[in-house]
Amino acid sequence: MSATAAPVNVKEALALRAAEVEAYLADCLQDRDIPERLLSSMEYSLHAGGKRLRPVLLLSFARLFAGKGSGLGRRIMPFASALELIHTYSLIHDDLPAMDNDDLRRGKPSNHKQFDEATAILAGDGLLTEAFCLMLTCMGEGAVPAERVARATHAVAEAAGAGGMVGGQALDMEYTAKPGVSLEELRGMHAMKTGALITVSCVAGAVLAGASLVDVRRAREYGCAVGQAFQIADDILDVTGDTATLGKPAGSDERQGKTTYPALLGLSESRRLARERAAAAVASLEPYTCQEADFLRALARYIVERVN
Amino acid sequence: MSATAAPVNVKEALALRAAEVEAYLADCLQDRDIPERLLSSMEYSLHAGGKRLRPVLLLSFARLFAGKGSGLGRRIMPFASALELIHTYSLIHDDLPAMDNDDLRRGKPSNHKQFDEATAILAGDGLLTEAFCLMLTCMGEGAVPAERVARATHAVAEAAGAGGMVGGQALDMEYTAKPGVSLEELRGMHAMKTGALITVSCVAGAVLAGASLVDVRRAREYGCAVGQAFQIADDILDVTGDTATLGKPAGSDERQGKTTYPALLGLSESRRLARERAAAAVASLEPYTCQEADFLRALARYIVERVN
Repeated sequence: MSATAAPVNVKEALALRAAEVEAYLADCLQDRDIPERLLSSMEYSLHAGGKRLRPVLLLSFARLFAGKGSGLGRRIMPFASALELIHTYSLIHDDLPAMDNDDLRRGKPSNHKQFDEATAILAGDGLLTEAFCLMLTCMGEGAVPAERVARATHAVAEAAGAGGMVGGQALDMEYTAKPGVSLEELRGMHAMKTGALITVSCVAGAVLAGASLVDVRRAREYGCAVGQAFQIADDILDVTGDTATLGKPAGSDERQGKTTYPALLGLSESRRLARERAAAAVASLEPYTCQEADFLRALARYIVERVN
Repeated sequence: MSATAAPVNVKEALALRAAEVEAYLADCLQDRDIPERLLSSMEYSLHAGGKRLRPVLLLSFARLFAGKGSGLGRRIMPFASALELIHTYSLIHDDLPAMDNDDLRRGKPSNHKQFDEATAILAGDGLLTEAFCLMLTCMGEGAVPAERVARATHAVAEAAGAGGMVGGQALDMEYTAKPGVSLEELRGMHAMKTGALITVSCVAGAVLAGASLVDVRRAREYGCAVGQAFQIADDILDVTGDTATLGKPAGSDERQGKTTYPALLGLSESRRLARERAAAAVASLEPYTCQEADFLRALARYIVERVN
């Protein structure tokens, strides 16, 4: 595939792979008999852009462990895309007036500003639930064994739930009102709020490919480290204001009143920590020599190169 | 089991079966490492009572098709309970200020009144996601085949999603603002908002038991008919104010400004329609002669007896 032919140009490879996901997302909700306004609201946020990092990670780990010629990528595209539905739902609910009260998301009106609050709540609920439909459609004849699909879906539910992403957002709300958040608290909150879904993207890809326990563990290590690197880089970009590569408008007020890595550690130490986490991600893939592993290593480095 | 020994006293049998579900629900979130306040909020609504109708339906259909001595009931208790998490999440989100703006639920402050709006949104998100964890824990060695669990979970996701329950709530919001809702629109909205989850409770029980396609179809027919009977009875009780048996405080303002069956058809015709739908549910189980089928028939009749 052309997408994997140039792993050295990671930005281009990432864009090519994201475009494959985009093509699937384009009409993935069309056959579901969803009331018109609700569907418009779900699609408004789902098609608002983004790097599609989570689906790309899932597909890449599936390719790494199943091999390029397996045809697995096509069969698990609904599963990979489901991660983007979950990510999108979390952004819609995070933006609500009762949460971060953000009027803008990626330079456009946030969902509740474009539609209304009730519709935004339901669009989020709908995207989360439809994600589980998509994940579970991957099983069946000629597709992926039901046992693998069910295990991978269970892992995603754990990561997205109250002990993962939802719990992380709850802590984020608590910490916003609280002075003196510690580094340990910040790290724990981000591990749940953004880390868990990024990590499970890697893990689920490995599980769907039928990877061994050792390989799944390495996918988890990579995901944890990349998730941390990603979060620290995101915090740095919010402070330095150089948000062009993140696709955010400059002056985004998303972190208003929130504790960040640079606030606790300073910019220089934050940059060092981000590089260290990226290096840990690269190290976790040490046993693998194929082109797919090269892409994942380049991706880990790319995430922190943006902030150096 | 004592719960099935007295099918003629359906009220007592229903309470006994609900108590089994209650016992499982009591600590089903305890091992999930959920931030304290979020956990309190999720448990506040989950343990606020209710008939546990959906889990009882699932367990009953599983027993009907797997047989009493199969031990399936114990193994699928997490799946059955998950339906109550989904039902509870939908009530929390429906009560929010941006939706029905209800201060009370079952005579107690609604979730956002007891906690706050952000916590209530996240408690709903958490309950929905944890429900999928619970459903998918039923597979594995000595439990239920993964293929059945995955199929049943997929059916629940479809029923709860934007083409089902979430879509029904979106239509309910639209219709509240709109004059002249037709009977067809009311029926379609309720089929999505409450009917889909009740129906899939019956279907999922049958699927988990490994029922034949014909048996699954009969479970679906029963669920559709019982769901309609239940909704019409609920509307009648809201109008007649005799809400004691439903566990609602009299004068509940849940339907303020909403179209109901009695408003469109009158009380007498609504009662007739409820009885007809209960009779259809009873008829759908005609081929089955066991005690479990007797319980399900008695349950269908009990739902409308309350309003006659």
